Amino acid sequence: MSAMNKQILLKSRPNGEPTAANFDLVETPVPTPGAGQFLVKVIYMSLDPYMRGRMGAEKSYAATADLGAPMVGGGVGVVEESNNDQFKVGDYVMCGTGWQSYCLSDGTGVMKLDPKQAPISTGVGVLGMPGLTAYYGLLEIGKPKAGETVVVAAASGAVGSVVGQIAKIKGCRAVGIAGSPDKCAFVVEELGFDVCLNYKDADFPEQLAKACPDGIDVYFENVGGKVFEAVLPLFNDDARMPLCGLISQYNMTELPKGTNMLPALMRAMLTHRILIQGFIISYHFNHLPAFLKDVSGWIKSGQLKYREDIVEGIENAPEAFMGLLKGKNFGKLLVRVADDPTRN
Amino acid sequence: MSAMNKQILLKSRPNGEPTAANFDLVETPVPTPGAGQFLVKVIYMSLDPYMRGRMGAEKSYAATADLGAPMVGGGVGVVEESNNDQFKVGDYVMCGTGWQSYCLSDGTGVMKLDPKQAPISTGVGVLGMPGLTAYYGLLEIGKPKAGETVVVAAASGAVGSVVGQIAKIKGCRAVGIAGSPDKCAFVVEELGFDVCLNYKDADFPEQLAKACPDGIDVYFENVGGKVFEAVLPLFNDDARMPLCGLISQYNMTELPKGTNMLPALMRAMLTHRILIQGFIISYHFNHLPAFLKDVSGWIKSGQLKYREDIVEGIENAPEAFMGLLKGKNFGKLLVRVADDPTRN
Repeated sequence: MSAMNKQILLKSRPNGEPTAANFDLVETPVPTPGAGQFLVKVIYMSLDPYMRGRMGAEKSYAATADLGAPMVGGGVGVVEESNNDQFKVGDYVMCGTGWQSYCLSDGTGVMKLDPKQAPISTGVGVLGMPGLTAYYGLLEIGKPKAGETVVVAAASGAVGSVVGQIAKIKGCRAVGIAGSPDKCAFVVEELGFDVCLNYKDADFPEQLAKACPDGIDVYFENVGGKVFEAVLPLFNDDARMPLCGLISQYNMTELPKGTNMLPALMRAMLTHRILIQGFIISYHFNHLPAFLKDVSGWIKSGQLKYREDIVEGIENAPEAFMGLLKGKNFGKLLVRVADDPTRN
Repeated sequence: MSAMNKQILLKSRPNGEPTAANFDLVETPVPTPGAGQFLVKVIYMSLDPYMRGRMGAEKSYAATADLGAPMVGGGVGVVEESNNDQFKVGDYVMCGTGWQSYCLSDGTGVMKLDPKQAPISTGVGVLGMPGLTAYYGLLEIGKPKAGETVVVAAASGAVGSVVGQIAKIKGCRAVGIAGSPDKCAFVVEELGFDVCLNYKDADFPEQLAKACPDGIDVYFENVGGKVFEAVLPLFNDDARMPLCGLISQYNMTELPKGTNMLPALMRAMLTHRILIQGFIISYHFNHLPAFLKDVSGWIKSGQLKYREDIVEGIENAPEAFMGLLKGKNFGKLLVRVADDPTRN
């Protein structure tokens, strides 16, 4: 009995929140690598908020997934067959696998992973795109100076957890924002943030103001919505806001009614000389070498910790992804598609 | 009969639009310079939109004017008495005069003007703060590249007129936005913008989209409101937006109700990797030497033109200022407080 390729296809585009009906689990034959190609058996699939944008038809910052094709995304796996000199059988790699248990690659955009250096799962986490997003966004756009206050949304997540820990390494006050008392406790006790607040608390804006007695110098934004509205009045002069995600509005089907907050943002940006820079990490891979050196060093020295939330089985990916958009994960969300032979 | 110092005091703070009742015209004795001081007889007073912020009690980007004190602002004048070695009688200077016909200075922040190089009125216009605002904001934040599309709000005004002309000098397509057919004609025919649109036209958003077939790379923002909302959908990837003013919302007493446009801005900034940087020119005076060299050169070569809108008599300053906030001026707004002996 030969192995089959389990795939999760995008069946239909969501209107608002994705539902199970938007996905389709199918089994197809495992593909055979052509000239210059190799076959990757996927071990971990990464689930990330940005994938919501790929499900829609509207222009987002990356091409949308095609209907009837596997959901797009990155993952970690092992080379099983190869017609490519650069990648041999048994190599562990990080690449754009899509939501499936096998994929072909010609090596474009593939990064080799050394299981002796770090668990291979980190290739899509703290040592992969989420980690680089945190590192580049905080250091190159946020430019934190020792003594400044750095506020981090989604602080227990794959990106935010790294942002706050780097802020601490750079001598800043790190204020996290997360969605449950458990997450907040983890962010302070395990990750070493100075404080972490639950944005679901009714008095969250007041708590945030109290937690930032000297105002906010850097706000690392990947949430938007009410969290941002609580941050806005607290910006200091010359504040910086790297913007790499807006999870609170990905399922929005129309602009909300009520008070138009746009003039408030514009006024704050003018009077406080604020910088906001939207960025997408795939345009900044030139920072990879410095990032890998610094972050793997901080992991080894114990200055930087990470937490993974691993879901078993590709068939559970849609539900896990829908939960991610609601903040149900606790740490970097991964799907274990096959056994990880490097982990005992 | 000795001369008197005519002063326009801030009598009360406006709620929304300023009115004549917010100002008070008084006459006081001309002050006598103390040790190290000199007396400036004001010739031109500058009227600028930012002064609206100085009238309010709320925190803005500069200290508010005190009730009962002269309105704050810059002007150009001539030294009439001096106890300061650096400034002698007859010197022409640009300084923070306030709204009055005489002021004292100790030399702080004073710039000498050479009437042989340029009309002294330009010291508060194209060769002063408005010109530097345009130069710094466009070149240092907007970073226009040849062939890109630069959109300029308030295009016939003191700042916008310079922005668009520098954009043309740098090889860009310059699209102006102004508030009347006369202004639009001037912006295209005299200043050499590629096109200029009247934001009061009902189909202005459609006109703007048509005028920017390749999208918008740089939007120089000093207006906000409906103009900005028309610009927002047209931003290209990696667009830049220097933000130095928001004249459309200075008289706003509360945030508008209706659709909340904030998520739309955030989404555009994320998906198009947009940079917005609020700035206040007084923090960038280190760019003055390069600015003066470049812009005076462009004026001499005929590549950069400017237009002044001169109101006669300090007593007319409040009305002229209220008109400025409604776009009634046409070019850089000045008040002639005394005869200009350098102009024939």
